[in-house]
Amino acid sequence: MSISGPITQVTFVGLPGIPHVQPGDDLAALICTSLARAQITLQLGDILVVTSKLVSKAEGRFVDLRTVQPGARACRVAEIVRKDPRMVELILRESTAISRMRQDVLIVRHRLGFTLANAGIDHSNVGREGEDWVLLLPEDPDRSAALLRQRLAELTGVAPGVVISDSHGRPFRVGTVGVAIGLAGFPAVWDKRGQRDLYGRELRITVTGLGDELAAAAGLITGQGDEGLPVVLVRGLRVPVGEGRAADLIRPEALDLYADHQELPGG
Amino acid sequence: MSISGPITQVTFVGLPGIPHVQPGDDLAALICTSLARAQITLQLGDILVVTSKLVSKAEGRFVDLRTVQPGARACRVAEIVRKDPRMVELILRESTAISRMRQDVLIVRHRLGFTLANAGIDHSNVGREGEDWVLLLPEDPDRSAALLRQRLAELTGVAPGVVISDSHGRPFRVGTVGVAIGLAGFPAVWDKRGQRDLYGRELRITVTGLGDELAAAAGLITGQGDEGLPVVLVRGLRVPVGEGRAADLIRPEALDLYADHQELPGG
Repeated sequence: MSISGPITQVTFVGLPGIPHVQPGDDLAALICTSLARAQITLQLGDILVVTSKLVSKAEGRFVDLRTVQPGARACRVAEIVRKDPRMVELILRESTAISRMRQDVLIVRHRLGFTLANAGIDHSNVGREGEDWVLLLPEDPDRSAALLRQRLAELTGVAPGVVISDSHGRPFRVGTVGVAIGLAGFPAVWDKRGQRDLYGRELRITVTGLGDELAAAAGLITGQGDEGLPVVLVRGLRVPVGEGRAADLIRPEALDLYADHQELPGG
Repeated sequence: MSISGPITQVTFVGLPGIPHVQPGDDLAALICTSLARAQITLQLGDILVVTSKLVSKAEGRFVDLRTVQPGARACRVAEIVRKDPRMVELILRESTAISRMRQDVLIVRHRLGFTLANAGIDHSNVGREGEDWVLLLPEDPDRSAALLRQRLAELTGVAPGVVISDSHGRPFRVGTVGVAIGLAGFPAVWDKRGQRDLYGRELRITVTGLGDELAAAAGLITGQGDEGLPVVLVRGLRVPVGEGRAADLIRPEALDLYADHQELPGG
């Protein structure tokens, strides 16, 4: 569209032709190839949102369920939630506490701090033969984001912001939305405390989940082809200067009025 | 940016020059004026995200706290949460249940079904003299969205999708994100059940909160100027055909594992 004058415009582009990724692949190089194909040159201020699945695959986070021996606790939980005990064993190994469980539902606190279903372990689009391969979340998504940012800077001369996104369900609301589980290059949380509104009053909404809004927005594009568009370029968004990490988006337990989790011994 | 071949690209534009709105103002006409100013012609498939505050102002949802007489229940709750008893009275009148309360925090189930802080009643950017004016959520945001869509169709010949957005906090996570509290013209929830992934396996994530992802994305732009950019045009997003409403995004209580609300008698 043709627009006159200064307009706030933010564009989200699903990068074309990102291939099926194998363990050890250089995601930054694959992204550069795709950018070249789309005739896009990275610019200062660009942000790349990458699905956690793509990162997990590159990091080789596959597990063959046939190699998993469920323990007694996993078997007890599996009876309640009616899931494969091997899958439950893996979920519990990735978790520090159970938030809710009932038939078909197992919501846990992941060792990374996120409260989410099935510890984010994914059974679809894993891309390995047979039904027994699953994919864990990246080992340390904030670190993955920082490394991807650094590697892209080496290859292109520009260090973009990076978000690693996952799709989570929520209490109270239907449907999953994108959330940030890894982030580098800008603040994950936008703190406007002390700023004033148009009428000089202090702002009511003072802390926004910037990383999560970006992940949710990118989810609109990655969702167009399920995992067919796993990298989204965001251009035109002015974000505050500073460093951040997705862990900043996790509410400390003592301040979380919904943190009635049941701790896992030794979790 | 110049791109060759078919690329999935979605653009968010903060409409310029939306003025301070008064009760009774025709939002559709104001939006058309802004579109003309930005030299944008509405197209089939466009979606407009409008902040609930703008809609509430046009609907005259102002309340002068000096006219509110707090009841006994409001006074008891106000002591716990340490808020203005008149504000608590208004919050409880707008609510059917309390989800959590403690000092500085009052999370309720709104009569519209949303679980949110302070029943969405807003004290900042109200734009009336003095500290005593507050703004309630729109009376029926799904209806507001449908009426705005219809009126825009009358004025422009194109019926855009409409989302009315609000910013909500969440359990487990820091910071507010945009959510849809009103919606018209497309499904609020994107149901992909039965679809298969790239490898022929049934999709794990089958129901996405499309309306909420749109509201969160638009929050990136409205957040650029707090309430300075209250209308965001979304262009290029392919959404499923069908009618929807934001109420579809509310998880039925019986299916909500976090619905331990304390019902308000007569709420």
